[in-house]
Amino acid sequence: MIIPRNPRLTPAQLEEVEKIVGEFGCRIQTIVGAERCIYAILGDERHETMMNRLLGLDYVARVDAIDSPYKLMDIKSSLAEGKRQLAGVEIGKEPLFIAGPCTIDPKNPNLFYETAQAVKEAGGHILRGGVWKPRTMPYSYQGDNAALDILLEARARTGLAINTEVMDTDHLRLVLEAGIDVIQIGARNALNYPLLRQIGAQTAGSKTAVLLKRGRPMAPVDEFLAAAEYIVSAGNPKVLLCPRGTLPSMDGYRNHPDESITQLLKAKSWAPVIVDPSHSVGRAAYVPGAALAAMAYGADGFVVETHIDPKSGIGDDPKQSISPAVLATLITDARVIWKLRQKY
Amino acid sequence: MIIPRNPRLTPAQLEEVEKIVGEFGCRIQTIVGAERCIYAILGDERHETMMNRLLGLDYVARVDAIDSPYKLMDIKSSLAEGKRQLAGVEIGKEPLFIAGPCTIDPKNPNLFYETAQAVKEAGGHILRGGVWKPRTMPYSYQGDNAALDILLEARARTGLAINTEVMDTDHLRLVLEAGIDVIQIGARNALNYPLLRQIGAQTAGSKTAVLLKRGRPMAPVDEFLAAAEYIVSAGNPKVLLCPRGTLPSMDGYRNHPDESITQLLKAKSWAPVIVDPSHSVGRAAYVPGAALAAMAYGADGFVVETHIDPKSGIGDDPKQSISPAVLATLITDARVIWKLRQKY
Amino acid sequence: MIIPRNPRLTPAQLEEVEKIVGEFGCRIQTIVGAERCIYAILGDERHETMMNRLLGLDYVARVDAIDSPYKLMDIKSSLAEGKRQLAGVEIGKEPLFIAGPCTIDPKNPNLFYETAQAVKEAGGHILRGGVWKPRTMPYSYQGDNAALDILLEARARTGLAINTEVMDTDHLRLVLEAGIDVIQIGARNALNYPLLRQIGAQTAGSKTAVLLKRGRPMAPVDEFLAAAEYIVSAGNPKVLLCPRGTLPSMDGYRNHPDESITQLLKAKSWAPVIVDPSHSVGRAAYVPGAALAAMAYGADGFVVETHIDPKSGIGDDPKQSISPAVLATLITDARVIWKLRQKY
Amino acid sequence: MIIPRNPRLTPAQLEEVEKIVGEFGCRIQTIVGAERCIYAILGDERHETMMNRLLGLDYVARVDAIDSPYKLMDIKSSLAEGKRQLAGVEIGKEPLFIAGPCTIDPKNPNLFYETAQAVKEAGGHILRGGVWKPRTMPYSYQGDNAALDILLEARARTGLAINTEVMDTDHLRLVLEAGIDVIQIGARNALNYPLLRQIGAQTAGSKTAVLLKRGRPMAPVDEFLAAAEYIVSAGNPKVLLCPRGTLPSMDGYRNHPDESITQLLKAKSWAPVIVDPSHSVGRAAYVPGAALAAMAYGADGFVVETHIDPKSGIGDDPKQSISPAVLATLITDARVIWKLRQKY
Repeated sequence: MIIPRNPRLTPAQLEEVEKIVGEFGCRIQTIVGAERCIYAILGDERHETMMNRLLGLDYVARVDAIDSPYKLMDIKSSLAEGKRQLAGVEIGKEPLFIAGPCTIDPKNPNLFYETAQAVKEAGGHILRGGVWKPRTMPYSYQGDNAALDILLEARARTGLAINTEVMDTDHLRLVLEAGIDVIQIGARNALNYPLLRQIGAQTAGSKTAVLLKRGRPMAPVDEFLAAAEYIVSAGNPKVLLCPRGTLPSMDGYRNHPDESITQLLKAKSWAPVIVDPSHSVGRAAYVPGAALAAMAYGADGFVVETHIDPKSGIGDDPKQSISPAVLATLITDARVIWKLRQKY
Repeated sequence: MIIPRNPRLTPAQLEEVEKIVGEFGCRIQTIVGAERCIYAILGDERHETMMNRLLGLDYVARVDAIDSPYKLMDIKSSLAEGKRQLAGVEIGKEPLFIAGPCTIDPKNPNLFYETAQAVKEAGGHILRGGVWKPRTMPYSYQGDNAALDILLEARARTGLAINTEVMDTDHLRLVLEAGIDVIQIGARNALNYPLLRQIGAQTAGSKTAVLLKRGRPMAPVDEFLAAAEYIVSAGNPKVLLCPRGTLPSMDGYRNHPDESITQLLKAKSWAPVIVDPSHSVGRAAYVPGAALAAMAYGADGFVVETHIDPKSGIGDDPKQSISPAVLATLITDARVIWKLRQKY
Repeated sequence: MIIPRNPRLTPAQLEEVEKIVGEFGCRIQTIVGAERCIYAILGDERHETMMNRLLGLDYVARVDAIDSPYKLMDIKSSLAEGKRQLAGVEIGKEPLFIAGPCTIDPKNPNLFYETAQAVKEAGGHILRGGVWKPRTMPYSYQGDNAALDILLEARARTGLAINTEVMDTDHLRLVLEAGIDVIQIGARNALNYPLLRQIGAQTAGSKTAVLLKRGRPMAPVDEFLAAAEYIVSAGNPKVLLCPRGTLPSMDGYRNHPDESITQLLKAKSWAPVIVDPSHSVGRAAYVPGAALAAMAYGADGFVVETHIDPKSGIGDDPKQSISPAVLATLITDARVIWKLRQKY
Repeated sequence: MIIPRNPRLTPAQLEEVEKIVGEFGCRIQTIVGAERCIYAILGDERHETMMNRLLGLDYVARVDAIDSPYKLMDIKSSLAEGKRQLAGVEIGKEPLFIAGPCTIDPKNPNLFYETAQAVKEAGGHILRGGVWKPRTMPYSYQGDNAALDILLEARARTGLAINTEVMDTDHLRLVLEAGIDVIQIGARNALNYPLLRQIGAQTAGSKTAVLLKRGRPMAPVDEFLAAAEYIVSAGNPKVLLCPRGTLPSMDGYRNHPDESITQLLKAKSWAPVIVDPSHSVGRAAYVPGAALAAMAYGADGFVVETHIDPKSGIGDDPKQSISPAVLATLITDARVIWKLRQKY
């Protein structure tokens, strides 16, 4: 949809516009209003260069896209059909719960094993644990390959599926060799398109799911879904969308909570939404409220940081991990809200 | 807390700083660290001029306030004690529900009377209805004094308490004469301090409550509570805090939902939080999710736009009012979540 | 422009849509694309109720407005013609400079008189000075009617035109009696529509100009211009648009600087843009950079806080007022940049 | 600085706090105020785990950091000394200008060669040109290794230094083999710490500079500088900070312009600031205003998209590239403003 600066395009301007869209297989339909004309683009608007060339015309005030910038992620795509099974849960039939520490401490593997057992007993389906960590400061702990073995051992002991974040292709190779169940992409890499594409390609046809966090930027819904499209179009449709808070907040939370974006994602896409309230609010006391709110907004589940003894943890655990006892209560209550929510 | 640009203040700088804070009855305590010194202000930091003068010193990098900019609204103030009763509800013992149309249509009073009756049957405690409306465009409907009579008549017919927005002192005089139960201050006037002060003073000692919306600005928590302090310090402690979404949103919602701010308000203040999900999300289909999320975040209740026939409404009703049937279900479910939430 | 959720509306849906827009004198034109249809609204989209009713249809995904929500402020309106003269300056032919303290200290009138004289000598055209002040905390200094006499006396002594902020109708009455030259509306009242309307009506046909600050909210351009439309449509076209920073900033500035919005305002409206860098950045050391940047973005002038002895000032002066010496240099440099800017 | 929820810590709480900070070599100093105590942390606060553990205590309301989360980037670090020479320009003695197309079209190398020549004639110092491009949609043009040869050929023909963006380690290897002069890290990878670290390490001791864009997120100043610290601490201090707009904007710009952040970066760090106005505003007509504003805010130079024939370009060129003629004028004017700015 082209909105000109003046009430209508001159014949020469219209000709130029038609020529541009014609190169991309589109046509123009003029809409004659009482006071002004606007110009609809018929055809596929998903040509960035076409749109950029139209925006570059100084007699054009706005170019509004009607189509979304993704196809496979769209709620109307054929991918919307079919069951989505993960860790024994049929998503959409019951909620999915992922829990575990922010960061695995390689010096204290027992803390992780005990947490893993407690997550299982609390009703969690998938065990999370950070092997490598993106940290704001270069001088902070950045992770350790040895933690991957601890994660695998915990899977062996508990039977829980496992989830960890990868930050580059070296990490990716290691977790694929280990047969990870869920690969997590963090907020800082959420728009790292070469990495998204590689993950999609290397897990194509496998059982591995990909948990894609929302970009820290307050990424618009369409940009978030377009990032997921990189993974899906490269071959892996088992993507989970994970809001986790946006801009840093001044007001007592770590980030601006965005549990509410769940409703918008659900309106536009078929993909499951698994919310991360821990990074959103950033303090343990606020996590249960945010996790339950996520269920009220219609989330398919949550991923919540949990530690058998938060104050002994490293990474974000001391401030934002909840105890397994709180997790157990939370899962019970989340099931109640999930059920209430189905009627709307 | 004064943080200097250099590792420490010179003796002359320190003397200047001490002189400034001394004028306001404060003292400086130097904190000697390994690499730098910082300077604590002992006494009451709530002197804006003192803080501004410190910030004006070019050798000062930051001045961090420790105290909050309000006293009566603070969770530690003596106002935190005591029961808060409104429309027969003891707030904190059970949730409070306010519902009704965005705008009363003075040409169709029966639509309002029927809605009022339906709100009562659905379990609402207070009836809302806009008499005057702040509209973005000067050419849109701006309200009508005649609608106040309709609101009063609905109270007489149903026995429900009533709530409407005032935008200036003329409105205020009229609603006080009418014995309004709850005066609403909208987002656009949320920092209109002369109006806040007048409302506080003119309702001092009365039974009238004041529902203060959060400023559209993404007002920080402290600024929101300081605005409420204007009302309370002028004489009326019956203030209700009402988040209603912040910046306009690009993504399908009307505003950025801020139901989540409830937890922060509760951590800092004793005041009841009554969330407005209708203005937050701005479309009827998204309202129940947001209303239930508000309860999950710990709200004391909600105010939700409801209309017996939304598409016949004026103002925002056609897009964001829910039907009385949805309201009834929502109130039932909200009670369940409110109860679950008490355990955290 | 109506974008349906499904690729096209059913005949019954189309009929409903046509009926709604028909009530407001509009028609629908269907645009048939390869994969989907969209529906243009022919006629005047500035009916909020029509747009709300369309948004209320559950089969409608989006309703995009093509028209701006204002008429008189539009760059195409007939108001764009004609000269704009203020304080001896023809706006658009040379830049306009407003300067003076944040707040007039009624206990020290000489500080104000000396500042006024210094503003004149530095090349300022209009003298600003706060008589009444909106303050975050109810316990801070709120202004004093006596300061108005000091402002008038300074005008008498220097011959400079004068500018002050009004917050309510009592203030308005007083400044109109005093024959103020420029009435300022602050960020907190920037969407206080009853006040805007009254100011527009009571200054209709007079020589008084109105300096309207941008709402603190990060008010979108259209909302800012629509607020100005309240003043202009009530009778006074002598409106000046004043960006002054938006959301509070965490990063060392007082607010997020928005000098850049100047270019967008200029693209959409004929109204002069007078930027306030003092409230934008909030510290004297950053003011010159922001003031010069405003000129580079194409502003018609600036309003900058200046004080003969900033550290003796009250209000924001100690932190953000520049000295008259800096003002003089700044005005000289601003003229250079203003001139360079005309060629683009 | 620890601010407790209650007016003071109990002895047991204080002991726990002292124990935690003691593990990291810090001590606590109690500051006894009239109404409350606060607790200063003496020692190095840059231990994320220590800060997280303190935040995890439920009797702690806030933990304010005094130190910045970087050392080498700090304006007080020894790196602030010494000359910074790039492409024949001594930064700080005269402004630096980078220009060229958004994206090199491998099918039309002559367009690039002609643009390169025109950039040189307009007074540019470094030639930019995108070889690989992060695009929102996976279906858009993503770049081509062949474009790197074109870039190198343009360097050979003009003698200009060259700059291009890398998105992963494959790109990095190729540009290092080619002896690139300036490596660009785009907004989407601005917090991709493994990549930042690798670039820093692999260019350690070389003449290669690194242009680090500000993260799209509205990255806070400290996070931006901490990201640069990854590069510098890995061995390469030749880092250039590049603001390029933040959140997507609704209002006619592509992003929210952030030229203003220049002043904050300059107050905290010694690193040169080279602003990108093209991505900030996103339309050619707005670029000169933003580029000149950047100089007014104190930038050391700019990087601006320029194309010999913008409408023939690919990538963002058609909408945001300026012509070489505009570039030439812009560089002349920028030199004037740069010079004016030095006096403040």
